[in-house]
Amino acid sequence: MDTLWLVGIGTGSLSHITLEGVKALQQAAVILVPRKGDQKDDLAEIRHRIIEETGSQARIVHFEYPVRDPDLPYQERVKQWHDEIARRWQVAIAGVDITGPVALLVWGDPSLYDSTLRIAERLSPAPQVRVIPGITAIQALTAAHAIPLNTVDGSVMITTGRRLRAEGLPHNAETTVVMLDGLCSFQNLDADGWHIWWGAYLGSDQQILIEGPLADVASQIVETRAAAREQHGWIMDSYILKRR
Amino acid sequence: MDTLWLVGIGTGSLSHITLEGVKALQQAAVILVPRKGDQKDDLAEIRHRIIEETGSQARIVHFEYPVRDPDLPYQERVKQWHDEIARRWQVAIAGVDITGPVALLVWGDPSLYDSTLRIAERLSPAPQVRVIPGITAIQALTAAHAIPLNTVDGSVMITTGRRLRAEGLPHNAETTVVMLDGLCSFQNLDADGWHIWWGAYLGSDQQILIEGPLADVASQIVETRAAAREQHGWIMDSYILKRR
Ligand SMILES: C[S@@+](CC[C@H](N)C(=O)[O-])C[C@H]1O[C@@H](n2cnc3c(N)ncnc32)[C@H](O)[C@@H]1O
Ligand SMILES: C[S@@+](CC[C@H](N)C(=O)[O-])C[C@H]1O[C@@H](n2cnc3c(N)ncnc32)[C@H](O)[C@@H]1O
Repeated sequence: MDTLWLVGIGTGSLSHITLEGVKALQQAAVILVPRKGDQKDDLAEIRHRIIEETGSQARIVHFEYPVRDPDLPYQERVKQWHDEIARRWQVAIAGVDITGPVALLVWGDPSLYDSTLRIAERLSPAPQVRVIPGITAIQALTAAHAIPLNTVDGSVMITTGRRLRAEGLPHNAETTVVMLDGLCSFQNLDADGWHIWWGAYLGSDQQILIEGPLADVASQIVETRAAAREQHGWIMDSYILKRR
Repeated sequence: MDTLWLVGIGTGSLSHITLEGVKALQQAAVILVPRKGDQKDDLAEIRHRIIEETGSQARIVHFEYPVRDPDLPYQERVKQWHDEIARRWQVAIAGVDITGPVALLVWGDPSLYDSTLRIAERLSPAPQVRVIPGITAIQALTAAHAIPLNTVDGSVMITTGRRLRAEGLPHNAETTVVMLDGLCSFQNLDADGWHIWWGAYLGSDQQILIEGPLADVASQIVETRAAAREQHGWIMDSYILKRR
């Protein structure tokens, strides 16, 4: 594996991929695709459809995600998991005759709350890594609601559900984006102070949007999220908070 | 103007545009394109090349950017400027027979430090606005350096040069992205504490990247920026700071 291309594919819509992304998939010799495991079936399906639609003739090589060890402390658990994925990539392509770049499809953009770059760093010998940017869940969210992310000249904080619960909201960012929140952590905020723009399955046909003063819509979001998750077996959602 | 499409085009590379963006430009009946004024010639050129490459048959209608009134206070100046641009869009298409959607090409993503959505809100009667997401300067920057934006589970602050000078860096974001900084405001920070990833003309053939401990590379960035700006007549640059 001399050359590794990480191709951002956006967050659910086939048409989120950029022309650069399409070209990269067409030029790749091998594409490494995860088999379910930690992946949901719908997402594996989207990956295959994107590859197909680009007309890529690349050889598809599958690998399986390992299970995270629940007994390890968080940082150690993540580290071991990354080590093991890197090992599995190498095992998967060990027998394959590689005549060009190896590509990986990355959900959204490879820079944002994604471990692919950190896993790639563990490969030895180190391949040349090229990153092809993709539309993030944040842009899919603002586009779906047709809203600006920032206030005029304002700052934006991007954070996780875990951090929101631990730290609350920063006093000096007019806008906060929350990702990776399985617990609807906005419920811990003083509901009167905030407006929320929430979205799930952004970019896909299943997209759901809810928006309003947090006090008015918080319980509607919690219920909608639970029902959708039940129905699909999985959910990905993100939201933006602004002071009212 | 019943329908207005804001199409994110990425930050300098023709191939940053998404398949959804290409399709929107092809389906648009009219594309509103700024004539220089506040725009730099290179950027107007990129817009025209993107339209051409998509094979769009849309009618191109030009408008001219007004000049901001320097005597007004900041927020009022911005407000008046937006009002005047909305008026000019309407004047520009007043005589045109519009048989379908009107499109505007927006640098990067329409949600990020861009006024197009705020200008569109001023149109009356209000058109139906659709936003097509685009690659932001932030993703172009992380892709060019092949780095993750966030640390593992960390928060990210996006801010402007002006805000960085006024407020310094937040204590609880591991990563800060600075945009709209004409003054290399990182020079005000304690250089020893930070690592910087800087990029100018991201995505384009002129792309320049500098990266290193802030203490080592700050003056190199200041000099490179000044020389490039001199040479091209304009510059757009962004950077990421992380604690060392
Ligand atoms: C592991 S992160 C990956 C982010 C991705 N790299 C990006 O650029 O958006 C997963 C989180 O992204 C957000 N996300 C990803 N896809 C989404 C979608 N289609 N709709 C809503 N949120 C999404 C959710 O907050 C989810 O918890
Ligand atoms: C008015 S804002 C527009 C941002 C745009 N909407 C986006 O999504 O990136 C302009 C700022 O974006 C950043 N920027 C835009 N294009 C850039 C490029 N090609 N290279 C570096 N920075 C860029 C710079 O910080 C610049 O001051």
